[in-house]
Amino acid sequence: MPIAKGYAATDASKPLTPFTFDRREPNEDDVVISIQYCGVCHSDIHQARNEWGNSMFPMVPGHEVAGTVTAVGAKVTKFKVGDRVGVGCFVDSCTTCANRDLDYEHYMPGLIGTYNAVEADGTTPTFGGYSDSIVVREGYVLSFPDNIPLDAGAPLLCAGITLYSPLRHWNAGPGKKVAIVGMGGLGHMGVKLAAAMGADVTVLSQSLSKKDDGLKFGAKDYYATSDAETFTKLAGSFDLIINTVGTAIDWNAYLGLLKVDGSMVLVGVPEHAVPVHAFSLIPGRRSLSGSMIGSIKETQEMLDFCGEHGITAEIETINIQDINEAFDRVVNSDVRYRFVIDIASL
Amino acid sequence: MPIAKGYAATDASKPLTPFTFDRREPNEDDVVISIQYCGVCHSDIHQARNEWGNSMFPMVPGHEVAGTVTAVGAKVTKFKVGDRVGVGCFVDSCTTCANRDLDYEHYMPGLIGTYNAVEADGTTPTFGGYSDSIVVREGYVLSFPDNIPLDAGAPLLCAGITLYSPLRHWNAGPGKKVAIVGMGGLGHMGVKLAAAMGADVTVLSQSLSKKDDGLKFGAKDYYATSDAETFTKLAGSFDLIINTVGTAIDWNAYLGLLKVDGSMVLVGVPEHAVPVHAFSLIPGRRSLSGSMIGSIKETQEMLDFCGEHGITAEIETINIQDINEAFDRVVNSDVRYRFVIDIASL
Repeated sequence: MPIAKGYAATDASKPLTPFTFDRREPNEDDVVISIQYCGVCHSDIHQARNEWGNSMFPMVPGHEVAGTVTAVGAKVTKFKVGDRVGVGCFVDSCTTCANRDLDYEHYMPGLIGTYNAVEADGTTPTFGGYSDSIVVREGYVLSFPDNIPLDAGAPLLCAGITLYSPLRHWNAGPGKKVAIVGMGGLGHMGVKLAAAMGADVTVLSQSLSKKDDGLKFGAKDYYATSDAETFTKLAGSFDLIINTVGTAIDWNAYLGLLKVDGSMVLVGVPEHAVPVHAFSLIPGRRSLSGSMIGSIKETQEMLDFCGEHGITAEIETINIQDINEAFDRVVNSDVRYRFVIDIASL
Repeated sequence: MPIAKGYAATDASKPLTPFTFDRREPNEDDVVISIQYCGVCHSDIHQARNEWGNSMFPMVPGHEVAGTVTAVGAKVTKFKVGDRVGVGCFVDSCTTCANRDLDYEHYMPGLIGTYNAVEADGTTPTFGGYSDSIVVREGYVLSFPDNIPLDAGAPLLCAGITLYSPLRHWNAGPGKKVAIVGMGGLGHMGVKLAAAMGADVTVLSQSLSKKDDGLKFGAKDYYATSDAETFTKLAGSFDLIINTVGTAIDWNAYLGLLKVDGSMVLVGVPEHAVPVHAFSLIPGRRSLSGSMIGSIKETQEMLDFCGEHGITAEIETINIQDINEAFDRVVNSDVRYRFVIDIASL
């Protein structure tokens, strides 16, 4: 068994600490990856701290994984040693059921998370990218375009696809007014992607403290949601609102900003349910929807789109020894805009 | 001024009583209608009792109005004396703004309700169909197909269009699994219309007491929502759920019954907000949406569709003197399936 080194949460209340573990023996359809960078997603924190109630310990978080191929199985055709590759939020999915659809695989039962999950064999836990290597089936490995660096490219694998997928599905593009709620790791990717798609982008952020960045990333307008006037001024303005905020804000106020037939799409997950009034949806045939990452096919499409448009995440690179402090800073929204672990520090 | 007789609520806490009032002098684009039947909608009760907080008294309710034309203005081209016509939930809309769209007029500012509203002149209150005559601009008058009787046809003007519009907008039809939540005035129309559109229809009702009717109206399946097993058995089953229930049921449980990309559309309005968990929407890219009546164009299309398919409401005809008892029975779901007032009793 290949030995891997990483950082793990051993318990919901303890800091992450160094951890050595076995990676599985590569099969003939597997790709072995030497990890160089791994992004830090807010959901790593939710899961390391068992805030969603489904955590398995020890847990090696990390699903924004970027590195190079060090070995491939005999049946691997798409990758060779030295390729610059990535792994996102899942490492396997149902490949047999009648509903299989490559556009939908991430919404189907059988999805296997990159960490905090169990491999297809039913017993081996999956461990994520806060580690120096990973073994992944070829079909779940992504290719980085040549012009996307691995450090600033890593966050595309979760933050990027989480925004790209709903922007595409709800037809962001020329002539469409799109609002991005929240200017964090997800939100700043949303601004860049929606602007590159040609949409007219507005940021709705608690304050104006990141306004300059927002406009630089491609937003046309930027409003503070702490100012009640924002909600009267922008009433009925947007075709699409992507809400990246994972705390319980008043969705009804934001639904009032939609045009007729507009949709607000949730990609952030507040811990508790949020009260929604039928009158927030009925008078404008509005929709409140959710979206979760994207398929492998769509993730590769997103990476290629980012290559074409020169889009990467804005990052702060950290050593893995600083991960616990980084977690606290993410919770306090004190990062511009995504932490990426330099795995060489391990 | 033409004098009209009707029944009015004079106060949120008082029963409806006989009321005589002026109808406006007909203009050259107006149609004068002798009302023969008027359906009793739950929203008549909400408004007569000021449960939505926006009531103006005295109020003559009624927006499922069916009758015959007794006079037309000089510029009216679509109607002549003797025509069998209807008036639905609104009698005017914005005809000037840049956003005017005949498919959207009911979602635009400027909509003037058939009652509990103010005419375009800004001063005259509108009074509804619990009365013997009404004066309405030609563009807001509907034609009944010859085979649709005025009594059982009246409820099509609100209950019918309220279900027809979302069923069409969300593409109910062959190959689509549609659930109708609630088997009342709205729900029973939903079953008939969705079945006529070719969808595979399931009723989700509190109990099985109306199962025979549901199957007779075109449903293929009928489940009791009081049985918790219904929610495990039907998980992930439906493309579209239309929720006609105006009380606070747990929307999250129903969202779990949707397929990937499925929508639950609210047409009933609970008094208070209902807690919605992001995890009810995100994992299947599901949507919670709202829909409100339909445009005049779509209402006429619905009436023509009903004519083609021989669809009418199931009604209990009452004398207007029994309206207060009927209100109580509607609140207690004790009507199969819509009360219609015989205005001859006035």
